[in-house]
Formats: sequence, C-alpha cells, structure tokens
Amino acid sequence: MNKLEERIIADGIVLEEKILKVNSFLNHQIDVELLDWIGEYLAKQFNNQPIDKILTIEASGIAFATATSYHLNKIPVVFARKGTNKLTGDSYSAEVYSFTKKTTFVINCDAQFICPGEKILIIDDFLADGNAALGLTNLCQQAKAEVVGIGIVIEKGFQPGRSRLEAAGFIVKSVACIANMKNNRIEFK
Amino acid sequence: MNKLEERIIADGIVLEEKILKVNSFLNHQIDVELLDWIGEYLAKQFNNQPIDKILTIEASGIAFATATSYHLNKIPVVFARKGTNKLTGDSYSAEVYSFTKKTTFVINCDAQFICPGEKILIIDDFLADGNAALGLTNLCQQAKAEVVGIGIVIEKGFQPGRSRLEAAGFIVKSVACIANMKNNRIEFK
Repeated sequence: MNKLEERIIADGIVLEEKILKVNSFLNHQIDVELLDWIGEYLAKQFNNQPIDKILTIEASGIAFATATSYHLNKIPVVFARKGTNKLTGDSYSAEVYSFTKKTTFVINCDAQFICPGEKILIIDDFLADGNAALGLTNLCQQAKAEVVGIGIVIEKGFQPGRSRLEAAGFIVKSVACIANMKNNRIEFK
Repeated sequence: MNKLEERIIADGIVLEEKILKVNSFLNHQIDVELLDWIGEYLAKQFNNQPIDKILTIEASGIAFATATSYHLNKIPVVFARKGTNKLTGDSYSAEVYSFTKKTTFVINCDAQFICPGEKILIIDDFLADGNAALGLTNLCQQAKAEVVGIGIVIEKGFQPGRSRLEAAGFIVKSVACIANMKNNRIEFK
C-alpha cells in the first residue's frame, strides 16, 4: 500500500458501500504533508510530456491541483466554478451530475483561461461515475484545448468512471484505487 | 511595490470603485509562482510563534492557506464550508454577509477539526468589511481555540475590515493593502 492507501485505511470512514468520508485528512481538514506527497505522485504520472495548465473544479480539487503544480514547475492552475457565470465575458459551461449529492449542477470557466491548442492536465479529488471529469473534458473540447491526462486522488474502481473516460480516449491515473468497500472494509486494486 | 502589488497593477481589473477582479492570477486562474511567494510572505508574518492549524473558507481561500502551510512546516489546513452542515456529527457555524454578493451565507466546520486551546492562523483572500474573517474567528471562539493572527492576501484599506478586526483584538497582516481604487487607478497604502 502507498501512503494515501494507508491513510484511507487508518482514517477513512465508509458511510455506505459507495460513500467514503475523508474529511479528516483531505476534504475538510487537509494533511498538507500528505497533500504534498499526492501532488508529487500525480506530477510523476504525467511529467514525461509538455503540459501548459492544470484544470480542476472548486472547492476540493483546488488543493490537489496546486500541489501537483508545485511538482510541475508551478504551471498555472485554473479551477472551474460551480454555478452559472455571473461575470461579464465569454465562458464555457457544462452540466455535471453529482453522484454524492444526487443533483445536477453547472460548471463554468472563463473562455480566456483555456485556450485553443493548450495541453491541459485535469486533476480531481474523486472519480466515481466520471461525470465531473467528463464535464471538465467538455470545457476543454469547447476551448479546442487538448486533455493530456486525468489525475485522480481517490478512484472508486467499482464504479464506471475510468471505463467511461478511457472509452472517450483519455488517460486516467489515480493515486489510490478502491476495489470495493463492502462490509465497511476497504480493499484496493 | 511588492510582487503582488505589481501584479495587481498589471492585471487587476477595477469593476467599480470597490470591486477588484483578480481572476486571471488569483481567483479563477492561479499563478502558482505568485501563490508560492504569497504563502511564503504570509508565513513570515506569523512564524515567530507556535501555530497548530490554518483555518480558511472554501473555495478561493484554500490555495492561499495550503501555500502558507508549505512555509509553516506543513501544518494542517482546515477549510470552513459554505452552507449548513449536512453530515452527521457536531459542528460550529456562523453567518457571514458577503459584500460582493450582497447576501448572507452560513459557514460551518466540523467540531472535531478546531479543538480547545489550539492556536489558529486565519488566512483569506480578501479583507473588505471583515465579515468573513469575523465569521472564522467566531468558529474559533465557539471551539475555545485561540486566533493567533489573520493573514490576508488583498486588503481593501478603504473599508472597515481591519479596524473591526483590530477592535476585536486580532492581529491583521496583509500582503497588499489598497488605499483606493478611484477613477480605475489603484493606489496602495
């Protein structure tokens, strides 16, 4: 097991067979030592190619995106916002269905921050059904930018996120991939 | 002028006399080189005393809080969430009036993440009327934790935030303090 997997076993709380609470070290309180390690790990998965920017979603993706950037020569991070864009200017938007909250929300990004031809690395905290990541790839497609890969902190390997993203042609790397969470026991792939 | 002040002059957009848009380098797209410099700057204002944790608010405070933590031995970061707490367990909450959005919202934090006697450094992106920072100090008071200081990225020095916080006994340090933004011209204190 790697550092994140060990920590999930120690401090993760399985609420149902599909919901994992990591509030005490990733999503509400952040262990910054672990955050830095995660950023370094994700950067290593993608550092063999040119990347112009990292794209994520507010709020819980931000820390992982900047932590990854620290290990990729501090390239810029853009975070898509939830809700419709209330500011002036052109923007891209996409609908995302949230598995955890059972609602659809809109994400948006100012058009000036994702540019045609830019090589974009997408970073997010969780991958379950893949809807958030697909929403982010959708923003990149609208901008005619190229998604060079998708880096995930915790993948729920028993849900279809990875297969949907790979079927769409994207490279997916995760730090921890959970095989199942049956009977409150977490097993990794 | 310091690095942040130079960048605000170069790329900040004054929307009205009181609204400054820093979307292109701080609040939507993040210049991670500048972010790291800001984190180091804020850490230096407070590194002469013991600090247990950094407290901020989602979403735009997160990057600055973790960047500051990188320069304070990677102490844990806690981010208060907007909205009422939907999860189980005890939590602290406070109401915050948003100057920019002209609405009141609730922030909340799990009780287990701010503990009695802990020394807390509050970090936030903007200081205007001081309501967000006061909301965060309120959470700390409920938890019987001690606020050792409040670090702000951009202070609007022509609004009463600092004087309200100082009147309540808090130490406030900002990276850039704007004296006024009249006629689309930004002047620093």
